[in-house]
Amino acid sequence: MISTISRAEFRDAMARVCAPVNIITTDGPAGRGGFTATAMCSVSDEPPTLLVCMNNKSQQASLFMQNRRFCVNVLTHEHMHLAGKFAGGAQDMDERYAAAEWTSMASGMPGLSDAIVNFDCEMETVHMVGTHNVMIGRVLCARVRTDGRALLYMDRSYVHLPPPSLGSFGG
Amino acid sequence: MISTISRAEFRDAMARVCAPVNIITTDGPAGRGGFTATAMCSVSDEPPTLLVCMNNKSQQASLFMQNRRFCVNVLTHEHMHLAGKFAGGAQDMDERYAAAEWTSMASGMPGLSDAIVNFDCEMETVHMVGTHNVMIGRVLCARVRTDGRALLYMDRSYVHLPPPSLGSFGG
Repeated sequence: MISTISRAEFRDAMARVCAPVNIITTDGPAGRGGFTATAMCSVSDEPPTLLVCMNNKSQQASLFMQNRRFCVNVLTHEHMHLAGKFAGGAQDMDERYAAAEWTSMASGMPGLSDAIVNFDCEMETVHMVGTHNVMIGRVLCARVRTDGRALLYMDRSYVHLPPPSLGSFGG
Repeated sequence: MISTISRAEFRDAMARVCAPVNIITTDGPAGRGGFTATAMCSVSDEPPTLLVCMNNKSQQASLFMQNRRFCVNVLTHEHMHLAGKFAGGAQDMDERYAAAEWTSMASGMPGLSDAIVNFDCEMETVHMVGTHNVMIGRVLCARVRTDGRALLYMDRSYVHLPPPSLGSFGG
């Protein structure tokens, strides 16, 4: 029998994993919501599908479950302040949304205007795992910027890649 | 009715998302396996859980399904060559493993000795989504390095953060 890792040890280990920062938005019958998330990844390209993990104790969980649609907005290093607001720095949803420019996606979801990518998703299924909902989203469309430096999160801090001219790209 | 994104468009959009690079290993009754993956994320800390997406058409899929255990090895910028081998640069499993040093995890899984983090996982459930299996892993233990610069993948190239002394950390 292997002894299992503690919650704190797991969090400390996961903090060492560098992850891109996203704001996940929704709008619809249940109202507008949005939160900052690093737990997002591609699942399949046939059909185009991604997933996002969301704490099911969050006040916004039922809102996402009811709207059944969401948008993944991939942030640039210029969105550090915005990421903080959507991570809880601002409790009020109007205040969160007032901090940036939004352009509706085809589905009507709020798309961050200067995100690196916006993925407009329809919720396909939700799997409950521990405290979290794994939301499987079918990607309906995507808007892409060809520039923009990724905002990353590691060691409980925001970090980002230097401009390409500094030569750290390409390994 | 919203027209859906093509497979190629989705792949191009997802290529703009900067992701950490991992090697996922397994060993057990079905034999030893290992592949490079960026689709990994934390799910819950209660209990400690993560997920990895794996193409179910991969020759290794049944091997992972039978062993029911795997290890997530989070790579540093020094592992770029190794990532290439486990991404298909080397077809032979012995050749892949010979390219690095391994230290067994408590469960017996192969743990990359100088990974930033090794997560030793027991497969809890597997959800099939399109072409992929979403493998939900209960984390039994983790080994962590406090140094090591993350290897990332973006725009179909390996990239990495500069040393902290160059001042790009912390935003």
